Parts: sequence; C-alpha cells; structure tokens
Amino acid sequence: MLPKIDPDRLWRHQREMDGIGATTGGGVHRLALGEADIEAHRRLADWALARGWRVGLDDIGNMFLRREGSDPALPAVAAGSHTDSQPMGGRFDGMFGVLAALEALETIDDAGIETRHPLEVAVWNNEEGPRFTPACMGSATYAGGQPLDRMRAQTDADGTPMGACVDRLKAALPEAAHRPLGAPFAAFVEAHIEQGTTLEENGKIIGVVTGMQGYRRFRVEVTGEDAHSGTTPRARRKDAFVTATQMAVALHGAFLDEADTMRFTIGRFEVEPGGISVVPGKVRFVIDMRHPSAEALKTEGDRVAAICAAHRGPCEVAVDNYSSAEPMEFPEAIRARLEAAAEARGYPQMRCYSGAGHDARHIARLNPAGMIFIPCWRGISHNETESAEKDHCAAAAQVIADVLIELDGQS
Amino acid sequence: MLPKIDPDRLWRHQREMDGIGATTGGGVHRLALGEADIEAHRRLADWALARGWRVGLDDIGNMFLRREGSDPALPAVAAGSHTDSQPMGGRFDGMFGVLAALEALETIDDAGIETRHPLEVAVWNNEEGPRFTPACMGSATYAGGQPLDRMRAQTDADGTPMGACVDRLKAALPEAAHRPLGAPFAAFVEAHIEQGTTLEENGKIIGVVTGMQGYRRFRVEVTGEDAHSGTTPRARRKDAFVTATQMAVALHGAFLDEADTMRFTIGRFEVEPGGISVVPGKVRFVIDMRHPSAEALKTEGDRVAAICAAHRGPCEVAVDNYSSAEPMEFPEAIRARLEAAAEARGYPQMRCYSGAGHDARHIARLNPAGMIFIPCWRGISHNETESAEKDHCAAAAQVIADVLIELDGQS
Repeated sequence: MLPKIDPDRLWRHQREMDGIGATTGGGVHRLALGEADIEAHRRLADWALARGWRVGLDDIGNMFLRREGSDPALPAVAAGSHTDSQPMGGRFDGMFGVLAALEALETIDDAGIETRHPLEVAVWNNEEGPRFTPACMGSATYAGGQPLDRMRAQTDADGTPMGACVDRLKAALPEAAHRPLGAPFAAFVEAHIEQGTTLEENGKIIGVVTGMQGYRRFRVEVTGEDAHSGTTPRARRKDAFVTATQMAVALHGAFLDEADTMRFTIGRFEVEPGGISVVPGKVRFVIDMRHPSAEALKTEGDRVAAICAAHRGPCEVAVDNYSSAEPMEFPEAIRARLEAAAEARGYPQMRCYSGAGHDARHIARLNPAGMIFIPCWRGISHNETESAEKDHCAAAAQVIADVLIELDGQS
Repeated sequence: MLPKIDPDRLWRHQREMDGIGATTGGGVHRLALGEADIEAHRRLADWALARGWRVGLDDIGNMFLRREGSDPALPAVAAGSHTDSQPMGGRFDGMFGVLAALEALETIDDAGIETRHPLEVAVWNNEEGPRFTPACMGSATYAGGQPLDRMRAQTDADGTPMGACVDRLKAALPEAAHRPLGAPFAAFVEAHIEQGTTLEENGKIIGVVTGMQGYRRFRVEVTGEDAHSGTTPRARRKDAFVTATQMAVALHGAFLDEADTMRFTIGRFEVEPGGISVVPGKVRFVIDMRHPSAEALKTEGDRVAAICAAHRGPCEVAVDNYSSAEPMEFPEAIRARLEAAAEARGYPQMRCYSGAGHDARHIARLNPAGMIFIPCWRGISHNETESAEKDHCAAAAQVIADVLIELDGQS
C-alpha cells in the first residue's frame, strides 16, 4: 500500500516559498543565487536537516537533500526541479517541482519506509538563465553538457561571476557536504507546471511528458556610431537602433510559419548608450528559436545570420549561435511508469509534449529520466500572474512519491 | 585694449576636468550631480574661491561663480554652460563652455579690470537629461519654464530624487550662498562645441548661433503580456517587442523627409522583463523629434500618436508628448556683438543654426542672450571620441572675454 502525501503540508511549503522574493504583483523575483534564492535553498535545507537527512552541494551550485537507503552502494533515486525564477516571474515554475519532490520524500519518511536506494531531492541551479547564461546551467554542467570552469566564470550584469555566487551559497549552507558532478542517478523524475494550455484545454491534471523541443539561441550585436540626435542628419547616421529594429521585423516575418509551430522570440534587446538625445551606437539582442523538429531548427536557424546581414544598413552586425539543444524524447520505460502511477490514483491524464526546456532534459543524458506536468492557469508562465491549483500540485507530488517507491523496488 | 586669454591655462583646466569621470574610451561619464559631476563643481568652486570670488547655488542645483563689480545694484553679465555629460559622453560638450567662461573671468581678473556689473560663470544643472528628465532642467527651471517642486521630485533609475542630489551638492559646497531662481542677468553668452559639421566643412572656427530648432519629445509605452517563449504559440502572444519594433520602423519611415531636415531619433528603448525566454510584456521608448520649423513640428508631431495606434497589434499603447520647445532666435544685438568680437580678433567665422538645444535657449527668456560654436571633430558628439582643438577653445574663450567686457560697458 503506497502512502498518501499531505496536500496541506505541500501547500504550506508552497505558501512559505511564495514569500521568498515575493513581488507586489503576486509573483516572485528570485534570480539564480540572488539573496532570495539562497534563502529558499537555506529553508529547504533546514527542512531536510530537521528530518536528519543530509545536504550536499556541488561546484556549480546544485543542492541535494538526501534520505539514505539501506544499500550504500546504490545510486540515488531522485526527483526535483529548480528554485530560481525569471525576473518578476511566477511562484510555481520550478519551485513546485522541488516541493513535490520534498513532499514525496517526507511522505515516504513519515510512512517509515526503508528504501534500498538513497532518495534525493535535486535542486538544479540557474535553470532560468536571465541572470547568468545559459539557462539550465546547473543540470547541464552536472550532466557534462557545459564546462564547469566556463560556467563558474559567467558573470551577471554587475560583473559578479557564478563561481562567487556558488561560494556564497556554500557559506550559507555550512552543513552541506561536497558532491561530485556527473554521478548518475538510478533514475530522475521532475514535476513542473505545463506553461502551456494542453492540459487545461483537455481537462487533464497530469501530463506525462513525451519529449522536448530543441532550441537554438543567438546573440546579435549591431554596431553603429553614437551621435547627437539634434545635429546629425539622417544621411550621416549609423543608427544601430534603426538597423536592429528593421532586422527584428524582418526576422519575425521570416519565421512566421502558418502552422504556428516555430517559437521565435526576441526577449532581450538592449540599446546603448540609451540617452534620449543620442543616436544609439550599439544594440545587443538575443534570439530564442525553438522547434520540435531537428531538421527545421537546422534549416531555419541557419538563415538567421543571412537575414541579419541583409538588413545591416550602414552598421556592422555579428551573430553568435551560442547555445543549442536537439529535440529529445524521454525513455518509454519511465513514461509508462509515470502514466501507470497517475492511472492507479485515478488522475485524469494524457501524454503531452514540452515546449519549454527543463533540467530533466540534461539529466536524461546520464540515466533514465522523465517528467510530469500539471496545468497552469491559461498557460501563463514567466509572469507574476502564473498560477496552479493546490489539488493539481498534490496529485503531482503523489505521482512522484509513488514512482520513487516503485523505482526503488525495481532497479 | 582688451586683455588676452591664456590658452595654456584654459587647456590645463580642460585636461583636469577630462580626468573627472574619465572613461577608458577617452570620454567622460559624468551624469548630472553624480559623484564625478559634484567633484567637477567642487573643483570649479575652488578655483573661484582661490581668487576671492563668491559661489552661489540655487534650489535646482545651478552654480554661479561671481566676481563682484563696482555697482552692487546692477545684475551680472554672465557666461557659462554645463558640466554634466551623456552616459559615456564627450569631454567638451558643456564643460568647454564653462571653462571658456571661467578663463574669460580669470583673464579680466588678471588684467585688473574693474567692471561695473558683477561677472558670473553660470553652471547650469542637468543640461543633458539622461539621468533625470527633462534635459536643460537647471536653466529651464531658473527661467521659469519648469516648476521647481516637480523638477526636484524627478527621480533617476535608482529612485533618487533630484532634490536629494541638489542637497548633496550643497553639502559638498558649504561656502555657497543661496541664490534665488529667476533673477535676470544683464546678458548671458554661452560657448559650445557645434556637434555638427557646418564649421568644419566651411573652415571656420567661430559660429555665431542665429537660433535653435524646436523639439517635441514623446514617451511611448507598449503593453502586451509576458509569456513563456517556449510554450506560447504566436497566435496567443501579446508581444510588446514585436509591436514596438513595428511601430519604430513605421515611425522612422513616416518621418523620412527627402530634405533630411527632420531629426527623428529613438535613443532609449527598454524591453521588460528582458529574459531570454520570456515574451516581453512591456516596452517603453522615447522619441526625440526636432525641426527648425514650428509648423512642421506641430504637423508632424501630431501624427505620432496615430502612427503608434495604427501599429499597436494585439497590445495597448500610450503616447505622451511630455516635453516640447518652439524653435527660437537669439536677439540680433547679441549676435552682432559676438560676430564683431570674432571679427576684431581675426577668427574665421560664420553664422550658423543650432540643431541641439542648449541652456542659452531658456536664459534667453529672461534677458538678452547669445551663443557661439566652435568645431568639433567630424561633428561627433554624445560620444567618447568627441574632440575639439585647443586653438578653437582658446578663440571662443577670447570672444567671451571680449564680449563680457563690452556688455559690461554698454548696458
């Protein structure tokens, strides 16, 4: 008989975390390893330590809350997600998956179940990426997809390197043992809000994720020449803003597919020097291109540089495809197990595809991994109004708890 | 016999000021009443105090260096400009005019000339405007064109009000006496770099400014909805960036006049929240529109809101014409006097028109005022590479010195 999770405890934890980095608009602003994010880590560690579990930290700032098993030779069966948010982001993205994993372990702990494998809550560092690029830095570095030294050297807008932030996290968690990177788990599962409307539209509360679309990210730098806005005639301007906006309009037009499958976004666009009476000499922007088809990503992504060059006007342009990931699929064994667990509890469920990238993508390179989604209101995410229901969060925590026990018994 | 200014002393002062807020790219970053700008004020005050002159400060942060005259009933004959710069701006814009005025007074002082009027160097606060809007805040408020309370309440990006910065300046200048706003001068003259290429192209070193073009400035705010870039299909997006770039391209196209007389610039353009994987829900940008014709400014400026509305797509747009000034002309009496002074010294000179706005525009509302320009290299200004020649700076200081003496004798 599988134990039942405690929906009220889970919701209490969620409410407590909602307060760490809370915004007046009802969201959270909890950038990776900023003050609020470190406080969230500390709070999670306190809950784990209070149960006599151990806390581990690796060199890229991933945190592991560990309940030991009976066989010290076995790798951990793990679940988790991330605690960081987008700027002025939502309360559930990432954090809900961490709390669902914690609730699963607490439920198993309260039931006095002795597992063979250790059980772990994994808290992947910097999943979001707005403070430090790239996104999924913690899980990708853990899984060998990014070089540790370069990731630690990445700086935020103030010039603070990630390495210094990891050191701050370590200082805030003196109880944490050092963990090596790259050690495979027995299995890893992640719960997350869907950030789309498929579940909502279909009246389901659990989505078993089949796979994730791939992406390519480009940094574009347009260089013109600063000039006085009152005295410099148009003919003598090298206006990086004029060029960059024409580029942006051309790019949006070029990737406008009728099927609306392509996800083409320019979310960051910085104009320098930014004076009201200065013709801008520099614009830097970032393109986020996503697609379920590897072939489409290749063909369409390869057009970016040429489109930018064709619209460079009197300016110089440099395009850098600094980050990419192929579309991926989770192993059917894990998908089937998640599906069976949801079915056994009677939760309305369906298979679905992930438009967003998640840490499980990277951990799936090391060991069997899978994901479940729950609905989020109107599909709105990366937004202060992001919202999810208590019952749905509880259902996900229940599926995670049930599956962790099953994975422990079978592998 | 009019005394000769000291080009070496003037250049020494310029070099000293170049070091206050110096950038690695050879410019200065000396935002209004930031640390560097307050240091520049302090240095100027020290030079004045060393000569036994007095220092005055008004409630909007304008500083006056005053050499008394023989008749205490007379208003001051004044010259000056501003010490603040654009972000990563040039060394001569503003500062050169202040130092030319100082050099003029020092020359008159060294020659032992007793003037009837007091002579003053006026240092107008926040001429540039990137830290606190609007530009020309100090001179406009002095001349009654802006309300003092509202200007002191204007905040920078960190939320610091101008009033607090003025208080910091006061604290740094405990010797400064309080000066009332709005007291007319006997006359005011300003020297400035041209920030255009007319003088350079015509081989002249002094430009007698006939007048200034008018301007209208607009704040545009585009409101869409933040959303996840990986999961939100185009059809469900309210992408403020897509809308704002289409608006910007349409605006640039709409004001593209064949004669290249219109100066239409978007120099500030801010995208929120700015995450790589977030569809932007908000864009704020500022339009700077300038034209020599009051009628063209009216007709063309009145089109801005309609063009924005026509391109709003799925977003909301708000347009605010928050600042305007009519084209203006300086009185011929002052223009002729400046011209005669340049001619008497044998400086190649011409009449020219100002594309930029300057403090003299506002002071001209109170009393006779005029301006001279010197060439700046390639017309480049609001840029770290902005440059002017020692001999040209000296010529301008000489014209200012000569004209101050003449204005003292005649009015």
